[in-house]
Amino acid sequence: MIGIKSIASYVPAQGLDNYAQGAKFGKDEDFIIGKIGSAFLPRKAAEQETSDLCVHAVQQLFAQNPALDPASIDALIVVTQNGDEEGLPHTAAIVQDKLGLPTHIAAFDVSLGCSGYVYGLYALKGFMEAAGLKNGLLVTADPYSKIVDPEDRNTTMLFGDAATATWMGEGATWQLGKAKFGTDGSGAAHLKVTDGKFFMNGRQVFNFALVKVPQHLHELLGETGLAPADVDAFCIHQGSAAIVDAVARRFDEGAPEKFVKDMVETGNTVSSSVALLLEKHLFDSTWQRVAISGFGVGLSWASAILYRE
Amino acid sequence: MIGIKSIASYVPAQGLDNYAQGAKFGKDEDFIIGKIGSAFLPRKAAEQETSDLCVHAVQQLFAQNPALDPASIDALIVVTQNGDEEGLPHTAAIVQDKLGLPTHIAAFDVSLGCSGYVYGLYALKGFMEAAGLKNGLLVTADPYSKIVDPEDRNTTMLFGDAATATWMGEGATWQLGKAKFGTDGSGAAHLKVTDGKFFMNGRQVFNFALVKVPQHLHELLGETGLAPADVDAFCIHQGSAAIVDAVARRFDEGAPEKFVKDMVETGNTVSSSVALLLEKHLFDSTWQRVAISGFGVGLSWASAILYRE
Repeated sequence: MIGIKSIASYVPAQGLDNYAQGAKFGKDEDFIIGKIGSAFLPRKAAEQETSDLCVHAVQQLFAQNPALDPASIDALIVVTQNGDEEGLPHTAAIVQDKLGLPTHIAAFDVSLGCSGYVYGLYALKGFMEAAGLKNGLLVTADPYSKIVDPEDRNTTMLFGDAATATWMGEGATWQLGKAKFGTDGSGAAHLKVTDGKFFMNGRQVFNFALVKVPQHLHELLGETGLAPADVDAFCIHQGSAAIVDAVARRFDEGAPEKFVKDMVETGNTVSSSVALLLEKHLFDSTWQRVAISGFGVGLSWASAILYRE
Repeated sequence: MIGIKSIASYVPAQGLDNYAQGAKFGKDEDFIIGKIGSAFLPRKAAEQETSDLCVHAVQQLFAQNPALDPASIDALIVVTQNGDEEGLPHTAAIVQDKLGLPTHIAAFDVSLGCSGYVYGLYALKGFMEAAGLKNGLLVTADPYSKIVDPEDRNTTMLFGDAATATWMGEGATWQLGKAKFGTDGSGAAHLKVTDGKFFMNGRQVFNFALVKVPQHLHELLGETGLAPADVDAFCIHQGSAAIVDAVARRFDEGAPEKFVKDMVETGNTVSSSVALLLEKHLFDSTWQRVAISGFGVGLSWASAILYRE
């Protein structure tokens, strides 16, 4: 069974002081840290392409895992909606070349936003199992600094640039359990790019997440025969501090404290958010079972159970 | 095991007379039919979006398969590099909404070009098996009329607009056998979009295909323990009549005649090309085993064996 063997990331060191940005829009520090959740928003350099962020994250993964021979990588998925080129070619091909990965690699991009990591885990595991592949990389990189208008108070305080790389293969500590997915294109207009500028209807997206995500997680647990008490942690998309808190409050006593909130230095990193939480908290933990959930542009959502083998 | 249950398509009735277009560039009818391979190039209407082509193909699939309840669809992949919006949201979400498919559907786009259908088959099968899903739609739609410059003699005589929809699920007549994949991003510049215009280095792409595809198919057959004589048909990407003929000639006696060439009324339809061949020739045939191959932008390639259950 293909599972999660290791996770690494690249978070640019440079970025924006979100308190200073908040002050510009008349938002105090309580709002920035309490509602937005992020004091600092990493920003890629102007000359860095999306593929460069991917390359840094994969190089960090190789550094963490000396046993992983780059020549053994046979599958690569890049989850992004802000890739290098105008539609074609796909960013995964550029990453293959920049990293010097073998040309017998299967590589493609998956177009998804904040739900993309959860989808991507099952897409890569499934593809590898269906095609008989052994060592896969699931890479996320969706630098919203490419599309966010710094004058748009609804979005510029939220998003951070980052990339993550997840090694999937046999003999993994963490395995993928049951998953559930969802899509509602009638909400497509709530998060979209027009003429190169990103638009978000924050209220609609917040309401969508608040209604959909707790219900989806409850359904997933119910269908798996689990109670919230059986889950050691909830690692959900870090859309904002407010949305993580609001989703957590829709769970009974004991569960809200299990919702990991860790975005002070990263912001909302789109499809990288859940991977960043797992990278930091999963492997050194005593956790046996974790619920993950991503939700956003599409609208699209996905929730799953990960369990320690 | 998830396999291919049915395939349908949408090919716009309107389009370009390629003989007339050839005459404009000083190309005679022998060149247009013998080298390019297409007398007619379907073109979507200006007001049709990529998602509309997808919707027509899926509606045709539903019409062909009264037993397939739209409410039972739980997975949807759209293969495209020319989707509706500027990167986000993904076209699959828009297709979900336009078709009124259930919101519990798992939906995402795969970004690949002419190799996309072969990749997509394994991506959807694998994703469905990993996630426990039952009825999936693999949709291809990559209308190059959006990006091809009608004054570019290297590309405007080649590409046609089309969409296909493949129903994947249990109990299928056709199953997916061994597959092989490849990616070489060092050739990314040979097929790319810049400032909204598509560029193709035809000579480089032709040479790539001529070297890579026969070798890849031979390797696939060898690793499967098959000889070309064991395969009833080769359905490869219809890049042009010249490339199909040239690849076929790299096989020993008996095999070249098994290469299906059927693009007179469609042109090079990118990720739809292999699906269009299979739709037309697979299900009413006596074939037991078919080799498929897609190759193009990325550079990216993929070959696989399909077999009758």
